[in-house]
This record gives sequence, structure tokens and C-alpha cells, in this order.
Amino acid sequence: MALIVQKYGGTSVGSPERIQAVAERVKRWREQGHDLVVVVSAMSGETNRLIALARALSHDPDPRELDQMVATGEQVTIALLAIALQEAGVPARSYTGAQVAVLTDSAYGKARIEAIDDERMRADLAAGKVVVVAGFQGIDAEGNTTTLGRGGSDTTGVALAAALKADECQIYTDVDGVYTTDPRVVPQARRLQRITFEEMLEMASLGSKVLQIRSVEFAGKYNVPLRVLSSFQEGGEGTLITLDAEDSMEKPVISGIAFNRDEAKVTVRGVPDTPGIAYRILGPVGEANIEIDMIVQNVGADGLTDFTFTVNRADYRKVLTVLERIAGEIGAREVSGDDKIAKVSLVGVGMRSHAGVAAKMFETLARESINIQMISTSEIKISVVVQEKYMELAVRALHSAFDLDAAVE
Amino acid sequence: MALIVQKYGGTSVGSPERIQAVAERVKRWREQGHDLVVVVSAMSGETNRLIALARALSHDPDPRELDQMVATGEQVTIALLAIALQEAGVPARSYTGAQVAVLTDSAYGKARIEAIDDERMRADLAAGKVVVVAGFQGIDAEGNTTTLGRGGSDTTGVALAAALKADECQIYTDVDGVYTTDPRVVPQARRLQRITFEEMLEMASLGSKVLQIRSVEFAGKYNVPLRVLSSFQEGGEGTLITLDAEDSMEKPVISGIAFNRDEAKVTVRGVPDTPGIAYRILGPVGEANIEIDMIVQNVGADGLTDFTFTVNRADYRKVLTVLERIAGEIGAREVSGDDKIAKVSLVGVGMRSHAGVAAKMFETLARESINIQMISTSEIKISVVVQEKYMELAVRALHSAFDLDAAVE
Repeated sequence: MALIVQKYGGTSVGSPERIQAVAERVKRWREQGHDLVVVVSAMSGETNRLIALARALSHDPDPRELDQMVATGEQVTIALLAIALQEAGVPARSYTGAQVAVLTDSAYGKARIEAIDDERMRADLAAGKVVVVAGFQGIDAEGNTTTLGRGGSDTTGVALAAALKADECQIYTDVDGVYTTDPRVVPQARRLQRITFEEMLEMASLGSKVLQIRSVEFAGKYNVPLRVLSSFQEGGEGTLITLDAEDSMEKPVISGIAFNRDEAKVTVRGVPDTPGIAYRILGPVGEANIEIDMIVQNVGADGLTDFTFTVNRADYRKVLTVLERIAGEIGAREVSGDDKIAKVSLVGVGMRSHAGVAAKMFETLARESINIQMISTSEIKISVVVQEKYMELAVRALHSAFDLDAAVE
Repeated sequence: MALIVQKYGGTSVGSPERIQAVAERVKRWREQGHDLVVVVSAMSGETNRLIALARALSHDPDPRELDQMVATGEQVTIALLAIALQEAGVPARSYTGAQVAVLTDSAYGKARIEAIDDERMRADLAAGKVVVVAGFQGIDAEGNTTTLGRGGSDTTGVALAAALKADECQIYTDVDGVYTTDPRVVPQARRLQRITFEEMLEMASLGSKVLQIRSVEFAGKYNVPLRVLSSFQEGGEGTLITLDAEDSMEKPVISGIAFNRDEAKVTVRGVPDTPGIAYRILGPVGEANIEIDMIVQNVGADGLTDFTFTVNRADYRKVLTVLERIAGEIGAREVSGDDKIAKVSLVGVGMRSHAGVAAKMFETLARESINIQMISTSEIKISVVVQEKYMELAVRALHSAFDLDAAVE
């Protein structure tokens, strides 16, 4: 018997029929002898409906009042799920963020959880009840309603699991787990049975959209085993995200391949290779509110150097304008760019103990005649920038080269 | 400068445009130097939408969960009104029933208010803010969300006014005040400037639908001056409902005429005039869950008596069945009935000090050849039952005879 926190998103509770399906699923878990706390989001579409009402009254509605209003979305769902559970013969009780209580700071719209009172939940669980909690919301020290911002319901699930020291936090989504890479690009992609928090964070930050980064960080911090499962498919095991890698001897070096085509590359050529030059280039870019991802500075020759970095593709024109403006000041020879690039990244904690991952990656790409434009590495990740048109080819070649297709679950 | 509690119902806040209109009205009151606490209902249609969702999941949803869900309706409105007020340049802050806090018992769906904490409201008012509070809802001692049942938002308004010792509680409705009688029946009906709680209660219990009885009782108990105003018409004074009658020398004897055609009459003839006979007739009627309104027992002759009473017209067939069943047991000669009756009532505290009101009423009806079937009196009310087809004629004749049309405001 385990204590399990389950989280269902807006699509999973988007209609009375779907709420009934969630109730049936919760019932089956409970019949296996588990204690259950269920976190739900607002019914899909509801939050947008509410925000539209507020925007009809103000272009810039007060964040406190917006939270007061938007929090009703989850409050409706928890009551409906509790009703559906009771109808299915399962004793259940719903709680808002305030009732639990999920205590947060007062940063409306992006509040951070500070503490959770588990007393009522424990009493209900001890009495054999399923506890249904509104995701995404909390209450500040003054009793104001707050919301946690994007992906907030995942965070609520993880926070409750941490507070209750639950055995597992299950996040139900529209996919049945975390894959080695996007199956739309590589049909041989396979679902991972396990992945570490670190790897999941890298995958998420590199564009894999299964979970919000914040909830993964939170789960890692409190060591809450996180499982991603499909809410539309019965019986799957999903992917378990934990602190430690699999104990298996055959643990693959690489867990997954992430990629995205959201970035653009800009290069400032022939700048004097003097201390502070990076700041003189990137300072004005930051001031223009442009975020920078990868940065590469080549070793200079003749006292000159080339400086390349990537930005979000939406900022491409803007960053070129900034650089052309400062090119003269910093004595750069040329500013150029390319917004037809893609980033492909290998992720895996196995990399730490296996040399030669980078070499094998570069060799694989070379064999396919794919030119590498930029390289960036971290302890458990290697990212390369290639021409956008080679992205799929690069991902498939690497997926095969690192034995990801071949692996048997 | 006064402290005023205003309450707006669902129709008055039924759309963003109407919420804007309420904000403008609140702003004008505030510009006159008043402190304002505003109570709002859910947007019209919202409560029914939510209940339909719950009914899609259960024929008999748990009352606690229903309250948890239904309370979101007002929570949306308070936030929207606060946003609209801020947009109009009026500092405002919204509170749910739980946040205020409106402490109630745990009778879900029909909770009774036990206490109100006025601290936050007073602090906001002192800081120049308009306080917007969700009507119809509260919180019990365990922190569960409760709702107050029908007319609950009026009750919230009165309760807040009592807790804050407000100068006035204004109830905005779709009529511009309380009338001497229904203007659809008597075009000369006039709006009353003042009426007492007692009179208002009699009018309400006799079928005048302006205010819920419960909120009038509550206002009377705590002596909160209550004013009924139109939310769609600017500048009216409405009707003020207070403890004491007008001081004016010309205070009319009668304040208003109420009527309804919701009742039916049944008569048990020729029953032995023995002690306990009323109980032997009305006992089985009560057991069948039929409520009785007026009761008349004629003085008997030859040891026999006739026994007549009225019930809700919907219960007419049912009560006849019960009486026919027991007629033999109690030795009654005949059971008969009539569901084409109407009740017409004069209401006024002036009756207490003026003799001859009943005589004048009967004379007026006799002059119109309207036969009186039953009579019932209380200290401030005389009700008669007449044939339904004479109802409008009776009301108009009495309205004129008691100088209600003629009175100048």
C-alpha cells in the first residue's frame, strides 16, 4: 500500500464525462489498496473564459483580483471530481488551496509555495477518503488568494507529495511517458522507463514539453519520485523520474535526444580581443530584454576574435539591429546571422562516466556530412547547432548511433 | 458622510457592461463622501450552469461539494467588480465569504450566519477603499465553504450592515421600491417612501416578492435600515424599510394591499363539535406534508360544526384525498373544496390605532357585491378569501377606498 498523489490537467477534466473517467481511474487505484490525493486543474478553456471577462473590463487587471477570479476554475473541478467519486462509491472530499492550506508568498500570478499544512489531508486519508485538491492556487499570509503561474498544478502535485512524503507523484498528461526523442521525428523512439531529474530538466529546457521545468526542479529538490502517465490510456507504466539513475548494468550512456528550431544565431566578427569585450557586446543585448542561450567565442588571431551566440528566433531582427548599432563603437568588422538553425542535444547522466560521447556524436554527424556550427556542453548534455534542414537527419542518426532504437525495455 | 452597504443581484451584474454600470454607480455614491461596502451575487445564469455540471455527474450531489462549487459564482463577480472599480479610478478590494470572514453553521445550502469579522473591512474603508464582498456564501468553523440558500445575498448585505453598524443597507433590484400594491393590477399604485419591517414581512409572506422574508427578518432583528432601489434607474429614493412608522401625522392607516391566488380552500361539513376535532382533521393533513394557511371553524349547531382551511393550490387534490379517507372515521357529513379562490390582504401598522378598518373593508367589498368566504386577522393585517375572478376588482376597490391612490408622496 502506497500513498500516491495524482495530478490531472485541464484536458483530462475537460467535461463531466472526462471527470467521470478520472473518478473511475482513481477508484481502480484505490481498490489496489493505495491512499490517494488528487490534484486537478481548471476544466480546459475555463481559465481563458475568465480572463476574457476581466479583459473586457480592463487592459491591465489588478493581479490580486485576477488571481481571486481565476482560482475559481480549479475550485469548480475539485467539487465536480469529489461528486463523481462519491457517485462511484468512493468517499471523497475537496479542498481549495486556501483550505489545505497551501501557503504561498504574495507574488500574484506567480506565487511560490512556502508551506503546506498536511493535517486535514492526513485525517481524511486515515478516514479512508480520497482527498481532492485544487491545483495552481494557494493563499498568502494575509488570506489573499494566489496562483502559481504556468504549470502551477504540476507544482501543487509535487509540493503535496513532498509535504505528505508520498511514495510517488503521478502526472497524467496526453502522452504516455517521456521518450528518447520526439516520436514524430524518430518513429523508433521509445518510452523511457526511468530518467533522472537532472536529465529531465535538460530535456525540458531543450524543448521537450512533457513537464514544466519548475515542477521537475521542485521534485528534485524534495526527492519526490515523479511519474508521467497518459490520462487517456489505461495500464501503462509511464516514465518514472527519480534522483538516481537506473541501477541496471546496461544503463545506456544517453537517455534522450532533445532538439528545437526556436533559435537564431548571430556572429560579430573581427572584434578586438580585449578584456570586457563580451560585456560590451552582450550588455546592450540584455538591456534590450533579449535572452541569450549558447555563447561561443573563438580564440583570436591578430588580436581579433569572433563572437557568436544564439537567441530566441523571435528576437532575431531585434538583436541584429542592436548589434549593428554598437558594431562601430566596439570596432567590429562585421555582424552576420542565421535564423535557419536548429539545436540538437544529447542528454544522459551516463555521459559522466563514459568518455568519447562527444567524439562519437561528432563522428556520427560527420558521416552524414552535417556541419556543426556551434558546440556547447554541460556535465550531462552536449548540444550542437546545425543547419535547420539537417535537424531530423541528425536526430535520427544519433538516435540509432547511441543504440536508443535498439534498446529493449 | 455615511457608511452604506449596497447589494446588487445577478441581473445587475449579468455582463461586463452591467458590472461597469454598477462600478459607475458605486463611484457616484463614493464621490458624495460615503464609505461603501458592496455585496454582489453571481452573474445571472452562472449558478444554474454550475448546478447543471454537478447534475451531469450525480442526481443527488453532496451538499458540501455543491456549496464548494456554487460559491465560485460570486467569487468571479467580486473580482470583476473590483477590477471595474479600479479601472474607474476607485480603489477597491474583493473578499470571498471565507476571507471576510462570514462565519456560518455547517448546514450546507441553507447555512445561517453566526458571526462576521469586520476587521479587514474596517481597515480597507479607513484606507479609502471600496470593499466588495461575495454574497450568499460563508465559511464554517472547520473552514468548509457554505452557502446561505435562496435570497442569501440579501442576507449577506443585511448581516454586513449589522456587523459594521452601517447607516443603511441598499438592496438594488429590478423594481424601484415597494408599492402599495402590484402596479400591474392597480395602475394608480404608488411607491411607498417608508414601510416598517413588520409590514414588509406581512407583504412578503402574502406574496409580494421584492425582498426575501429572511433578509427582512434579519434587518428587523438588528434594526438595519433597509432601502429597496432600482439598479436600472438613476436617482430614485426607493423605499426605506425601518423599525418605526413614519412620524407624519398623515400616516395612512393602510400601507399596502397584498394578494395571491396560490391557495385552494377545503371544507369539512357536519363534523361532531367535540374537543380534539381540529387535531383529528389537521393531523393527517400535516402528516401528508401539506402546509395549512388560514383556518376557520364555524360555531356549531346541533352539536355539529363546519371546518374550513386553505392550502397551497398545488396540494389541492392531495388534501381532498386525505380528507375523503378520514371523513368516515371522524363522522363528517361532507368534504368539499374550491381551488378558484384568491386571498386579498390589507397591511398596515396604522390598523393598531384605528378602529373600523375591518368594517370599511367589508363594506367596500359588499358595495362591489363581492362575497367574503373566509376572514383572518392579525394585529397589522386583515385577509379575506374571495372568488378568484373578483380578485383584481377587490384590490382596486380597496386601494381606492383606503385612499392609497390619492396619497401624494
